[in-house]
Amino acid sequence: MVRSRNQMIQLPSALENPSLETRPPAPAHSRKRPTLGIIGGGQLARMTAQSALSLGCDVVILDDDADAPASTPAARWIRKSANDPAALCELAQAADVVALENEFVDAALLAELEERGHCVLPSAATMRIVQDKFVQKTALMTAGLQVPPFAAVDSRAELISAGERLGWPLVLKKRRDGYDGKGNATLHSAEDIDAAWERLDGYRHALYVEAFCSFQKELATIVTSSRDGSSVSYPLVETVQRDHICHTVAAPASISDAVARTAGDIARRAVEAVGGAGSFGVEMFLTEDGSVLVNELAPRVHNSGHYTIEACVCSQFENHVRAIMGWPLGSTAMRAPAAAMVNLLGHAEGPGQPQGIADCLAVAGAHLHLYGKARSRPGRKMGHITALGSTVDEALNIATRAAAPLHFGNFS
Amino acid sequence: MVRSRNQMIQLPSALENPSLETRPPAPAHSRKRPTLGIIGGGQLARMTAQSALSLGCDVVILDDDADAPASTPAARWIRKSANDPAALCELAQAADVVALENEFVDAALLAELEERGHCVLPSAATMRIVQDKFVQKTALMTAGLQVPPFAAVDSRAELISAGERLGWPLVLKKRRDGYDGKGNATLHSAEDIDAAWERLDGYRHALYVEAFCSFQKELATIVTSSRDGSSVSYPLVETVQRDHICHTVAAPASISDAVARTAGDIARRAVEAVGGAGSFGVEMFLTEDGSVLVNELAPRVHNSGHYTIEACVCSQFENHVRAIMGWPLGSTAMRAPAAAMVNLLGHAEGPGQPQGIADCLAVAGAHLHLYGKARSRPGRKMGHITALGSTVDEALNIATRAAAPLHFGNFS
Repeated sequence: MVRSRNQMIQLPSALENPSLETRPPAPAHSRKRPTLGIIGGGQLARMTAQSALSLGCDVVILDDDADAPASTPAARWIRKSANDPAALCELAQAADVVALENEFVDAALLAELEERGHCVLPSAATMRIVQDKFVQKTALMTAGLQVPPFAAVDSRAELISAGERLGWPLVLKKRRDGYDGKGNATLHSAEDIDAAWERLDGYRHALYVEAFCSFQKELATIVTSSRDGSSVSYPLVETVQRDHICHTVAAPASISDAVARTAGDIARRAVEAVGGAGSFGVEMFLTEDGSVLVNELAPRVHNSGHYTIEACVCSQFENHVRAIMGWPLGSTAMRAPAAAMVNLLGHAEGPGQPQGIADCLAVAGAHLHLYGKARSRPGRKMGHITALGSTVDEALNIATRAAAPLHFGNFS
Repeated sequence: MVRSRNQMIQLPSALENPSLETRPPAPAHSRKRPTLGIIGGGQLARMTAQSALSLGCDVVILDDDADAPASTPAARWIRKSANDPAALCELAQAADVVALENEFVDAALLAELEERGHCVLPSAATMRIVQDKFVQKTALMTAGLQVPPFAAVDSRAELISAGERLGWPLVLKKRRDGYDGKGNATLHSAEDIDAAWERLDGYRHALYVEAFCSFQKELATIVTSSRDGSSVSYPLVETVQRDHICHTVAAPASISDAVARTAGDIARRAVEAVGGAGSFGVEMFLTEDGSVLVNELAPRVHNSGHYTIEACVCSQFENHVRAIMGWPLGSTAMRAPAAAMVNLLGHAEGPGQPQGIADCLAVAGAHLHLYGKARSRPGRKMGHITALGSTVDEALNIATRAAAPLHFGNFS
């Protein structure tokens, strides 16, 4: 069961210098439309493309999924794999800046684009740190930020030893390519190891473990960093997960000003620690004893920031475009005292077009966002609803009532 | 110089029954994405398509202009003329509902689509009334609404006689296809007739005259009418024209509550009088003596309503999509005490991509909307800027400062 992956556990040298200095300057003003290339064509790219369009940018999407939600607002769609070096070159040649909507593309391929003189943001050095969660956590710890205790595990024996050291329960995670709880398994005791190791395929994938964090609340925020190193951050929000998938977001989080300041500071330092550029999602735990731990960084716009489309002066998507295009960042101030977002998840396999749209739109103040996916699957993110209000409860009530009539997928 | 156009002056029979009853019901709920067809692919279609996308609709655009701003957010673009009956059929077959972004497509062609069973909104009957400004004014007058005195003129002699009856100055206008002052000429005396008749080509185009209206303010609003006959209306705004082109919009208009109520009521009755469906722009004059006259109806989303994207809970574009798709209408309430919009017009011939974007975006609270047009021409609408504020002056100040650095077209 033991595999040597020492070379992966070794931190990339970029960690010591996460490349703020090597960040390319903004492109010289040209008289053609600025073009943003995005690796991945899901809902995050779709909403980014909608913002880019209003700022007069063209968007080129690289995604081989025929069902890619971003293909519509894009000026061009390269229907090829994001792991195909030639396709990445094609994207980079068509764009002034290459961005990404997920953390799955191999940083080595991004580094090749940079070597050819293309501008990639976030940079390959940042992505090398962030896309391996063990390396990411090491970088955050190195920067003096508190994270849940964690350890690389290369074998069953190491896992048992980690359990003795960190205590049960433990969360076993894939170091790469996990999302929405896919790639995680909770181990209540050593007896759970074999099944989890099989399920996450520890024979083929690098894994690590984290101590189970008992939290009061899950907090999140978006930090947008510009090419010149300046940054803005959005209000702290509270996220509620259901089955490891973001279910609701409440803005602002119901926390003391002191905790909000601490968490905001931690989020900015976390994004700085990896040399982030563009909008980054920062997920944090507020523990029972009032500490704030960083859970995870997302090197891109994030589900916890969708509410900013209606609730903030400049959304996470528009600021993402501004940041990577080298333009001044917009205000992150909220336009209402409170906002809430409810994710719309697929109920069953079936067509992506929901039933119940008219009943949803009859709820005053609800903002419906459908991602236009052709197929529904249980738990698949099909859209979201945002509402503003004078209190979080009022906003949450509106969004929840509007979400209720929608049904995605065939009735069984 | 005399041409017989009596058959055109005759009011269409639809005028007596502007077809609220014949409006088709909303399509049955299907499990494929709803598809909206739009005749015309300019900025109005572009912003409508952006709203439609968020509601999960596909948009198909019919426009033969290679520079059509709406081609990007559309799922499909039929690059053919809107006057080509076969192309209109192709659009109608691809869409659940056919809408339009301008009033130039011949109502007879729309009627043919309806005869083939397609849903066209606004209907051919409405468009027959609205697209001929003389017929439109007659319909408004018939509905008991006050309009500036007007008369059809088929010859120089009729024009002189109208001048004697209505008094100078007079505004000579094309009955069809005019916009942004194109198709208008102000006559200060009978001496101006010949030049104006030549310029507007009265030999080939039907013309009419209106008494020159001396106004305190130009007011406008958007009324959105649903397929079931319900309607909502937006705040009354004040528009400022420069060279016959909308320059700024201030929301709400600085008028008494009584005038706002009167004007709002007139706008709703005007749209009802023509059996409107979807968002309609209503331009009005507030005269020196405090009367409200209807200037013109636009059977579509309108420049005076662009501010609603940021300033209202549900924009004129989203409500347009909701209305013609048969969905409940959204709230037209403003989210801030005041808002202002400034149009961005081309300064010169040249590339459409402006200089000065970074300086524009550095102005906090300014919302930039560029239409992505490939070429700038003097006076061409290239984009707009909206700002919210606690007063109209504050909002106007932000929007004006953000617009100042932008330059469209080559420097000469």
